[in-house]
Amino acid sequence: MAAVGPRLVSKVLVIGAAGMIGRKLVEQLRGKELILHDVVPFEGASAVSDLSAPGEAEKLIAARPDTIFHLAAVVSGEAEADFDKGYRVNLDATRRLFEAIRKEGYKPRVVFTSSIAVFGAPFPEAIGDEFLNAPLTSYGTQKAIGELLLSDYSRRGFIDGIGIRLPTICVRPGKPNKAASGFFSGIIREPLSGQEAVLPVPDSVRHWFASPRAAIAFLLHASKIDSEQLGTRRNLSMPGVSATVAEQIEALRKVAGDKVARLIRREPDPTIMRIVEGWPRNFDAKRALALGFRADKSFEEIIRIHIEDEQKMPSPQPGRG
Amino acid sequence: MAAVGPRLVSKVLVIGAAGMIGRKLVEQLRGKELILHDVVPFEGASAVSDLSAPGEAEKLIAARPDTIFHLAAVVSGEAEADFDKGYRVNLDATRRLFEAIRKEGYKPRVVFTSSIAVFGAPFPEAIGDEFLNAPLTSYGTQKAIGELLLSDYSRRGFIDGIGIRLPTICVRPGKPNKAASGFFSGIIREPLSGQEAVLPVPDSVRHWFASPRAAIAFLLHASKIDSEQLGTRRNLSMPGVSATVAEQIEALRKVAGDKVARLIRREPDPTIMRIVEGWPRNFDAKRALALGFRADKSFEEIIRIHIEDEQKMPSPQPGRG
Repeated sequence: MAAVGPRLVSKVLVIGAAGMIGRKLVEQLRGKELILHDVVPFEGASAVSDLSAPGEAEKLIAARPDTIFHLAAVVSGEAEADFDKGYRVNLDATRRLFEAIRKEGYKPRVVFTSSIAVFGAPFPEAIGDEFLNAPLTSYGTQKAIGELLLSDYSRRGFIDGIGIRLPTICVRPGKPNKAASGFFSGIIREPLSGQEAVLPVPDSVRHWFASPRAAIAFLLHASKIDSEQLGTRRNLSMPGVSATVAEQIEALRKVAGDKVARLIRREPDPTIMRIVEGWPRNFDAKRALALGFRADKSFEEIIRIHIEDEQKMPSPQPGRG
Repeated sequence: MAAVGPRLVSKVLVIGAAGMIGRKLVEQLRGKELILHDVVPFEGASAVSDLSAPGEAEKLIAARPDTIFHLAAVVSGEAEADFDKGYRVNLDATRRLFEAIRKEGYKPRVVFTSSIAVFGAPFPEAIGDEFLNAPLTSYGTQKAIGELLLSDYSRRGFIDGIGIRLPTICVRPGKPNKAASGFFSGIIREPLSGQEAVLPVPDSVRHWFASPRAAIAFLLHASKIDSEQLGTRRNLSMPGVSATVAEQIEALRKVAGDKVARLIRREPDPTIMRIVEGWPRNFDAKRALALGFRADKSFEEIIRIHIEDEQKMPSPQPGRG
C-alpha cells in the first residue's frame, strides 16, 4: 500500500486481542514488542481486565505504547440487547482510553475500529465521504461517538487517532454466530465445509464486504499512515466489495462448483429482512482509496482468501456454473 | 406554524433557564407549570445545581415534567479553553439527564438545543440535511454527541427527543461577549445604541442567522411537533437567514440610516478571520421547513425584531442608503 509515513513501530498495544480480528492482527505483528489485552483470558495475554473500570486504561497506558489498536467492542446484537453494557464497553471504555492517554501526556497513534453501522437508512446508492452518521443501532451510535471523540482528541493534540469503518467481514471463520449479518458468511463457509446453510433474505439484497485479510491490511496501513494526510477528518469508510447475495452465490459456484452452491437453503426470515433493509449496500470510499487503502478485488477473491487462510485443505476443484 | 400534534403541555422543565434564550423562552411559557433550573442562581429559580453532578438530574426528573427544554451548555470559547468542563457540562450532564429519564421510566418530549457548530469546513455551498457532522471545536463535538444520544434514546423509546441546530443568534441583546461570533451582533447592536462597533472580518464573509424571537419559536414548535413526523432522524438544522457582512450593513443602513451604519469600524483580526473561515455559511434546511419551522424573512427583519424587542425606544427614522 502507498502513502506510508516514516513512523517507526516499536511498542504496540492491542486492545481486544482475543477476538477474531485481534488474533489475526497479532500474527502480523510478530517481532514487535506487544502488549496484548482483552476482557477474557487468552493465550499470550499481557493483561486481562475490564477497560471500562476506573484505572484500568491508565495501567495499560503507563507502558506508553506508541501504537494502539483499539478493537474491543460489544457487538451489535449484544449492545442492542444490553443497553448499559453497550454504552459501558463501547463508549465509556473508549473515552477512558483516550483520557488515560491525555493524562499520560504523550501522543501515540491510535487506530480505532469503527463500523459501517454508523450509517443508517435511507442511503444514497453509494455512501460518500460526506454522508451523515445517523445510526439505527446503539452499537452504531457508540461507534459514531467514538469517532467524534477520536477526532476531537486528535484535533486537540492529545492523541494521533485514525478511525476506520470496517465493512462486514466476510468470510468470518469459525462457528455461526447470532449476529443478524451472520448468514452473509454462513452461506459461503458452511457449503464449503459440506454443510447446509440457511439464507434468510432475498437474492437481491446488496451488502458491503471485506475479507479478514483485507481488514488486517487496513489496520496495519492505518497504523503507519502520515496523519498530515488525514487533515481534521480522521474517520474513514474503508473500501470494500459491494455484492448482492446472488453475486455471492454465483462466486461460490465459480470457486467451488454447483454442488456446493446448492447447499444454500432459502428460508426467508422477515425479522432479518427488516434489519438488513437498514444496512448500507455500497460506498464510494474515495478518501480511503486516495490514502492507499485497498479492498479485495472481487467476491470470488474473498472466497479464495477464506479457503487459503481457513480451510487448510487441498484447493477445491473449480466448479462449473 | 403548521404540523403541530395533539400533545398537551402541562408541566415544563427548562434547563438553562437563566440564559438569554432561557429567559425569553420562559416569558412565552407563562400559564404552564414551570420548573426552572440553572447552575447559577436567578430570579424565579425552582432549582440551582450542577446537572453533571451525580444525582442532580434524578432530582429534577422526579417531578416527571412532560416537556423538557435542555438549553444548558458551556459555550464554544469556554469549552475550547476548559476541555474537562466542556465535556462535563455539555456531554456528561446531557447523558445524565437522558439516563435519569430512562431510569424514571416515562417518555417526556425533550427539546435539545444543538448548534451549527456540529458542522466543520470544508462545506458545500449550502449544507443539506444529509451532510456529515465533522465539528472543528470541542463544543461542536459535544453537541454532535448529544444529538447521537438523543437519537438513540429516542429510538429505544426512553425519551421522545428532538434536537434543533440553532443558527447564530443575532442580534444578541446585552453587552458584547467574548465569543468569536460576537461581532455579528455587535455591528448591529452597538451602532443602534449610538456606539462604535469593530468589524474584524471582510464584508464578504457569509454566515447563518436567526433572531432570538425565531429561536424561541423554533423551541416552542419543537416541543409540540408530532414525533411520528420526525422518523429516526431527530436532529434538524433550523432554517435561518444567510447574509454577508455587507448585506448585514446594508440592512442596518436601510433600517437605521447611513449615520448609524457609519459607526462600524473595520479592524481586520487574522485570528477571528481564521476561526470564522471554518464556520457554516448557508443551509438548505429542507426537513425543518417541511416540518413547519420558519426563519426570519430577511436580515432587515432581524434588525427590526431587535429594535422592537430590545431597544424599547420609539421607532427609529427609516434611513436612506
